[in-house]
Amino acid sequence: MDQPSPGDVRAESPDGTVVVALDVGGTGIKCALVDLDGTPRHLERHPTGADRGADAVVDTIVTVAAGLADRARAAGDTPVAVGLAVPGVVDEAAGVAVWSANLGFRDVPLRDLVGARLGLPAALGHDVRTGGLAEARLGAGRGEDHVLFVAIGTGIAAAHVVGGAAAAGAHGAAGELGHVVVRPGGPRCGCGQSGCLEAVASAAGVGRRYAELTGTPATAAEVAALARAGEPAAVRVWAETVDALADGLVVAQALLDVRTIVLGGGLAEAGADLLDPLRVALRHRLTFHREPRLVRATLGDEAGCLGAALLALDT
Amino acid sequence: MDQPSPGDVRAESPDGTVVVALDVGGTGIKCALVDLDGTPRHLERHPTGADRGADAVVDTIVTVAAGLADRARAAGDTPVAVGLAVPGVVDEAAGVAVWSANLGFRDVPLRDLVGARLGLPAALGHDVRTGGLAEARLGAGRGEDHVLFVAIGTGIAAAHVVGGAAAAGAHGAAGELGHVVVRPGGPRCGCGQSGCLEAVASAAGVGRRYAELTGTPATAAEVAALARAGEPAAVRVWAETVDALADGLVVAQALLDVRTIVLGGGLAEAGADLLDPLRVALRHRLTFHREPRLVRATLGDEAGCLGAALLALDT
Repeated sequence: MDQPSPGDVRAESPDGTVVVALDVGGTGIKCALVDLDGTPRHLERHPTGADRGADAVVDTIVTVAAGLADRARAAGDTPVAVGLAVPGVVDEAAGVAVWSANLGFRDVPLRDLVGARLGLPAALGHDVRTGGLAEARLGAGRGEDHVLFVAIGTGIAAAHVVGGAAAAGAHGAAGELGHVVVRPGGPRCGCGQSGCLEAVASAAGVGRRYAELTGTPATAAEVAALARAGEPAAVRVWAETVDALADGLVVAQALLDVRTIVLGGGLAEAGADLLDPLRVALRHRLTFHREPRLVRATLGDEAGCLGAALLALDT
Repeated sequence: MDQPSPGDVRAESPDGTVVVALDVGGTGIKCALVDLDGTPRHLERHPTGADRGADAVVDTIVTVAAGLADRARAAGDTPVAVGLAVPGVVDEAAGVAVWSANLGFRDVPLRDLVGARLGLPAALGHDVRTGGLAEARLGAGRGEDHVLFVAIGTGIAAAHVVGGAAAAGAHGAAGELGHVVVRPGGPRCGCGQSGCLEAVASAAGVGRRYAELTGTPATAAEVAALARAGEPAAVRVWAETVDALADGLVVAQALLDVRTIVLGGGLAEAGADLLDPLRVALRHRLTFHREPRLVRATLGDEAGCLGAALLALDT
C-alpha cells in the first residue's frame, strides 16, 4: 500500500526525539518524522482511500501514525508527540475535524483517537493553517512576525500567522480568502456566493475561464505557459487572474496588515510569471497600506506535514 | 480650559491603585482614572486644540496626564500606569504615534514622552483598537474570545480582538475594514481607492449620498429618521448603506471567523434601525460562514479611554 518512500532525509535525530506528523489530503497522506527543530528526518506517503468512507480513513490514519512511531522506536528514537493536519473546518482547540468534504469527516475527534491509540500527546490542525505555520516559521516567512500564507490550487485559502501561531477563528473557519467577493455578480462559486476570488483565480477557475473563452480545456499551468508565449486568450485569462488576486490580497492587507505574503499551492509554481505581475498589480492598488513583501513558498507540499509537527510541539 | 467634569463615577478605588487613561481625538481628549478591574473612577474632558500644532498637543497631553496623576495622589490613590490612545497609524510595540492627520502627528514617541514625564510605565494604542479592547473585555463582547469591533462614524475602522488582545498588524495599520472595496468602480474614497466601504456606508457617506439624490444636506441620523418615516430617498440610501455594510462584514467574517461583531460609532446610534436589517442582510449573504452575533456597543464614547487603561494594565 505504501508508495515509494522519499526515504531518510537525515540520518538521525540529534537528541533522539521525533514528532510523528501526518497531513491527510483527499487523495494522499503525507507523513514525516520530524526533529524538534522542525527538520524532517523521514518522509513517506500513503493513499487516503477516501472512497472507503470516514471510518476506514480514520483507521488508516491511526495505523500509519502507529507505524511511524514504531519506525522511530526501531531506529532508537523516541516519538514524543503526534501532529495531524486535515482539510475542511477544524476545531483545533477541541481537536475535532468538524467537517471535511474530501474525507467524508463530520465531527471526528481525530486528535484524541490518534493520541489514545499511540499513547502520545497529539494536536490537530487545518492543512492550510499548518502549511502557513511551517512557511512562516521554517520557510519563506522565516524570521517574520506577521505572515499571510495563501495557497492557490483547486481552491484558495489563507493562513494568517502572527508570532508563530496561525489564527483559527472562533469556529476553526478563519482564512477563507478564496471566498472574499472580488467580482460582485461574477462567476458562481461552489460556496454559494458569486464572484468569490476562488471562482475567478484558483487553478480550477483559470482553466475554466480559458475553456469558456476558447472552447479548449487547459490546466492552469498550460494557461500560464500559453500566456508566456503570448497566446491572446491565455494572456487575457492570466491578466484577469492576476487582477483578481491583487484585489483579494489588498483586502487582506487592509484588514490584516502583514509584513510578508507567501504564495503557495499549484498556481504559485508559475513562479515569476505569477509573482512579478502580481507584485505590480498589488503595488498599483495600495494607497495607505504598507506594501507587503510578496514571495513564493519554499517548503513545497511537505509544508502541511511540517506544520502539523510544529503544532504538536507547541502544545 | 477644563470642560465640566462628569465627576466621580465611584467614590474610591478598592485597592488604592488607579491607571491614568487618555483618549486623544481630533477635537477632544477623553480622560479617566480607572481601577484595576477596568471600572472608571473619575472622568474628565479637555479640548485637544489641534490647530496649535503637534508640539502643543503633546504638551497638553503630558500636562493633562500629570494633572490626573496628581489628582489621584491627592485622593490618596496610587497611579500605577498611563494608557494613551490616538487615531491614525500607531506602532504599539514601539509606543510611537506614526501618523495622525487629525493631530498633526508624525513619528511622535508619545509613550516614552508621557511615561518619562510622569515616572510611570506607559502604553500607547490606536483609538479604535483600544475601543475594541474595552468592548471585547468590558462591554458588548464581554466573555467572548473572538470579537470584531466596528466603529462607524465619519470613517469606518475595525478592531479584531482575540483572547483579549487587539491585532495591530505588522505596521500598526490593521483593521481598515472601511477601506475594503465593496463597490468596485464606486465612489472615490479619501484613501485613493474607489468603492471603499467607508465611501459608501460611513456616516459621512450616508449624508453625501442623500444629498446627491435629493439636493438636501442631511446628517446620517437625519437620514435614518427619514428612512424610518418612509421617505423614499432616505429609504433607498439606508438600504444601500445596510447592503454595503453587510458586504463588508461578510468579507471580514470569511477572513477572521469571529463569534461576535460589535457595532459602535455614531451610525450605531440608529440602534435597531441599523442592526435589524443588517442582521438580515448579513444572514442572507452567509454560505459556509458561521453566523456571528451582531450587537451594539455598550460603552459609548468612553470605550477608547477604558481600552487605553486596559492596554496599560496589560503591559
